[in-house]
Amino acid sequence: MAALPLYFDFISPYAYLAWKATPALAKKHGRTLEPRPVLFAALLNAHGHKGPAEIPPKRVYVFKNVLRLAAAAQLKLQPPPAHPFRPLLALRIAGLPALDDELRFKAIDALFDATWGGGPGVEDPETVIQVLDDAGLDGPALVAAAAGPDAKARLRTTTEEALSKGVFGVPTVDVDGELFWGYDALDHVDAALAGHDPVDAEALARWADLPASAQR
Amino acid sequence: MAALPLYFDFISPYAYLAWKATPALAKKHGRTLEPRPVLFAALLNAHGHKGPAEIPPKRVYVFKNVLRLAAAAQLKLQPPPAHPFRPLLALRIAGLPALDDELRFKAIDALFDATWGGGPGVEDPETVIQVLDDAGLDGPALVAAAAGPDAKARLRTTTEEALSKGVFGVPTVDVDGELFWGYDALDHVDAALAGHDPVDAEALARWADLPASAQR
Repeated sequence: MAALPLYFDFISPYAYLAWKATPALAKKHGRTLEPRPVLFAALLNAHGHKGPAEIPPKRVYVFKNVLRLAAAAQLKLQPPPAHPFRPLLALRIAGLPALDDELRFKAIDALFDATWGGGPGVEDPETVIQVLDDAGLDGPALVAAAAGPDAKARLRTTTEEALSKGVFGVPTVDVDGELFWGYDALDHVDAALAGHDPVDAEALARWADLPASAQR
Repeated sequence: MAALPLYFDFISPYAYLAWKATPALAKKHGRTLEPRPVLFAALLNAHGHKGPAEIPPKRVYVFKNVLRLAAAAQLKLQPPPAHPFRPLLALRIAGLPALDDELRFKAIDALFDATWGGGPGVEDPETVIQVLDDAGLDGPALVAAAAGPDAKARLRTTTEEALSKGVFGVPTVDVDGELFWGYDALDHVDAALAGHDPVDAEALARWADLPASAQR
């Protein structure tokens, strides 16, 4: 089955919502969801941009917005102990080269639930070991592996690959090279996977060379 | 009828989509839509933030995203002659203190169509006069009035009022003091107007004092 890459960072509640929705979406279209953990802060740095949590009124708004979206999806959503937090350990575990698909899904799901599903967060190694153990995984081994050079290199590589593709935020789904950003774009992912993306070359051509007549 | 303020700038295609959807939404709930033109660039300046058009891959993405949203809403959407452009003239007309509700709606609708509905744009005064004349309005008088101190003061005041309320982007709908940002939040506006906002004080309290354990 063709892959359906999902770029995400545990820091994003929208990525959590997308994580809970995309496996069924991939399955519906005969695709294999391919989780690709990236460091959102590195995307922001590369684009000289601010994250939603870095603009005070937007931070509060996002909290409310994700509560509304979670309610509509009948999904449990609670904040982690702190936010923003350091997601590096969780991201490195999620990308461990040695994990097979099944164990990777299990680990990511446990880490997302620990972050946004009412769990204890994923910042502290002892906590992460417990979270993974509770999910039936080998917590100590995974946390140890995440400290190794392979895990660190993998996260850097995946983040750079995302940037080179044009990823600027999370979650982003890559449908055969076409990027869809945000939980609210999953309807568009669904349409694109069904071959019904209304964006055609002719429509886009009108925009491609659009000049700017003003700059701030 | 209680007012339903809509903060917008012609620069935003999402604001155009919201403009076409909110009158029916307001009517459904017995509200009077109250258009409040604001300068989006001033919101960005105040928050030290970048607009979607200022991040190259995001600019292209937004074009595609709004084409998809317009297709779903069965709405004509084409780019203006240039983007970003200077929206000051159009915003000052939209906020003219002397306009009554009916004429204001007509003017804003004509200016939005001229921007995103396949029209000639709203940057050049001669073009704007023609656009307003074609809509049955007094183009020369409105463009002249927009150059006066009252029109300029009104735009500044409305933008400052928006900032003081916590508006950080456009479109934003204000449901009795609760702000909803973005075209994709109109479902939430609908629910809130029906008295079904799932965000309650208890849920929010968990987030309100959430500490940050990391900064970039």
